[in-house]
Amino acid sequence: MIKDLSSFYSKNALAMKRSEIRELLKFTRKPEIISFAGGLPAPATFPVKELEEIAVQVLREKGAMALQYGTTEGEAPLREAIAGWMTHEKATIKPDNILVTAGSQQGLDLVAKVFVDPGDILIVELPSYIGGLQAFTSYRAKMVGIPMDDQGMRMDKLEKVLAKLAQRGKKPKFIYTVPDFQNPSGVTMSLERRKQLLALAYRYGVPILEDSPYRDLRFTGEPVPAIYSLDDQDQVIVLGTFSKIFCPGLRLAWIMAPAEWLDKMIVAKQGMDLCCPTYNQLIAAEYLRRGLLPRQIEAIRELYGRKRTLMLKALKQHMPKGVRWTKPEGGLFLWVRLPKTMNASELFPKAIEEKVAYVKGSAFHCDGKGLNTMRLNFSYASDEQIAEGIQRLAAMVKKNLC
Amino acid sequence: MIKDLSSFYSKNALAMKRSEIRELLKFTRKPEIISFAGGLPAPATFPVKELEEIAVQVLREKGAMALQYGTTEGEAPLREAIAGWMTHEKATIKPDNILVTAGSQQGLDLVAKVFVDPGDILIVELPSYIGGLQAFTSYRAKMVGIPMDDQGMRMDKLEKVLAKLAQRGKKPKFIYTVPDFQNPSGVTMSLERRKQLLALAYRYGVPILEDSPYRDLRFTGEPVPAIYSLDDQDQVIVLGTFSKIFCPGLRLAWIMAPAEWLDKMIVAKQGMDLCCPTYNQLIAAEYLRRGLLPRQIEAIRELYGRKRTLMLKALKQHMPKGVRWTKPEGGLFLWVRLPKTMNASELFPKAIEEKVAYVKGSAFHCDGKGLNTMRLNFSYASDEQIAEGIQRLAAMVKKNLC
Repeated sequence: MIKDLSSFYSKNALAMKRSEIRELLKFTRKPEIISFAGGLPAPATFPVKELEEIAVQVLREKGAMALQYGTTEGEAPLREAIAGWMTHEKATIKPDNILVTAGSQQGLDLVAKVFVDPGDILIVELPSYIGGLQAFTSYRAKMVGIPMDDQGMRMDKLEKVLAKLAQRGKKPKFIYTVPDFQNPSGVTMSLERRKQLLALAYRYGVPILEDSPYRDLRFTGEPVPAIYSLDDQDQVIVLGTFSKIFCPGLRLAWIMAPAEWLDKMIVAKQGMDLCCPTYNQLIAAEYLRRGLLPRQIEAIRELYGRKRTLMLKALKQHMPKGVRWTKPEGGLFLWVRLPKTMNASELFPKAIEEKVAYVKGSAFHCDGKGLNTMRLNFSYASDEQIAEGIQRLAAMVKKNLC
Repeated sequence: MIKDLSSFYSKNALAMKRSEIRELLKFTRKPEIISFAGGLPAPATFPVKELEEIAVQVLREKGAMALQYGTTEGEAPLREAIAGWMTHEKATIKPDNILVTAGSQQGLDLVAKVFVDPGDILIVELPSYIGGLQAFTSYRAKMVGIPMDDQGMRMDKLEKVLAKLAQRGKKPKFIYTVPDFQNPSGVTMSLERRKQLLALAYRYGVPILEDSPYRDLRFTGEPVPAIYSLDDQDQVIVLGTFSKIFCPGLRLAWIMAPAEWLDKMIVAKQGMDLCCPTYNQLIAAEYLRRGLLPRQIEAIRELYGRKRTLMLKALKQHMPKGVRWTKPEGGLFLWVRLPKTMNASELFPKAIEEKVAYVKGSAFHCDGKGLNTMRLNFSYASDEQIAEGIQRLAAMVKKNLC
């Protein structure tokens, strides 16, 4: 029997980190705990009835195709439907710019595999999406975090970092951002920042990875143009997904990129899983063909918008002075900042005692900071749970105020 | 605009190779060409009717779960069903030994990601499955090929290689084999060789990766025990899949491994795609629960067995002297060996002129050899196409005999 497994693992495998959120889920699944920790869509929004019909139709009309291997880049009707859908943001999008992926997580893994050698520098946000950090870590990228404020990533800080790197002859492989209703902070990057970001990306010759799962889930305020829609230099790679606007259980998402970049990614995906499930792709294509997506998005927006308002109200009502939080105009998450002396990681067991859960903000920081922050999800809990859960959380915070 | 894309790509990405088969498919899709080049299952075998019923049932009974994110390791009912299914080979298999993957290709990619640093040595067969070679190449493994004969991998050669490596203080990360009705050769490893392989693996402390997509598709002869069923040292990692015994369009397969190895693979899969599609997993679990798999396998065996016999008959009837081929007892492929002076790669355009296609054998050789060999698939073409296609192929070979 082989005893020392670690001598067989790759350096990448040894660097891999378990997702703190996924591990937390086991813990927070107990029915008595009100969990704001996950990031799950509300199952009440899933279009089960419509899918019953479509699932059968696809098998009846295209069974032999639906159950066969498909092409690596994705089924033509789905690529066309996605490209068509995205032209409302940018008219030049073609099906050839779309690679269908197994969720955006595969997009993150794939982009990292294609771009990152160990030690390569990536720019990320502080805080940043944990699944991105996890994928990048698994290729041993060196991540440089740029602080955010309520306008998004701070461009003065980014400029300094890029200039300093350039002085040392170094260039990041890409700049990773979730510009709309960011996970975890709920912050949306302002138009001015988006323009500055593109200008910096052009000046320093660095691609941008725009991860955009929540963009269509805006409750209030005016949409800010997507970064890729402002890009005229083919320098933005986009991750889009059906997980938050349709359902996550089909595991369908896409990478949208200039065709030249996409070609290398298609070769990479061949070796990773050959193709996404043909059946699921044809189901999604038919769902889009029937024009059901806009109505679905509208219903989700309404539901999450109401839940967000409930959570903001409860926070205002119960949280003690010195605690601040973001007021997201869309998405699934908001961000709570405790007084600097408090530590959300140390407080977590106390929250569990009070039967309420969150994710500590430091899990989203590539530099391990953000100790006084936490992420709250408002899409999954019921209205009653939101009211009750925030009350419990606030009581715990009050008790532990220094 | 960024001009020099290659300066952004990782070394792994620069090493990636396009699958010659997948590229060929475009070429061989013309309706006038009889293609023995692909490896597609016959769509006539897909259980479309049963799936129509199950697809709806799953949505009705478990819609909220089926369309939600699932656990990384796979849905409990499916892991249980797979473990249960595999106990007919080895009684100690538990659901905890199963990780559900997006096809066996993800299994190959995942195992490579977890085990392989650039330059690490892997043992493969000559010839070997092209998707394995592709996945291993994408992590820049150094592959050492071991020749095969009609009993499978040659253990005398393997022993020499392992001994020589040990002398230099080196150890392969694993030994990769497709022991049953191998893709591409159609050869099955004999029981004696399997025992020798395990003995060598134990002696040199090297894990075995047993890739077993065709094992249940035996037409004639007696089953040889699976390598993992002979293993009492927890040293075999197994790749199993529904693609060839059920259908490939759901993209469901599994890694079976000792729980300790599996744990690292689960962390790796978190970062790769979070989880496989919950909907597909519940469909497959219900299909197995209904006990439909054995009947399905029986029908596939009967069909492919007949097609194999047709192909063997046509080869015997038409091929000129000096051409040899394997007589597989199962699976989807057989292997043709032309006279040593002939080159299957150079002959390919001539075959296309005659409107028949195959895959050149050198594509399956990590050392680029096997120039006089070709792989023929017998699962996809119709009976008439098999008779006609082999006649065309034989005519082309005769014309070009030196």
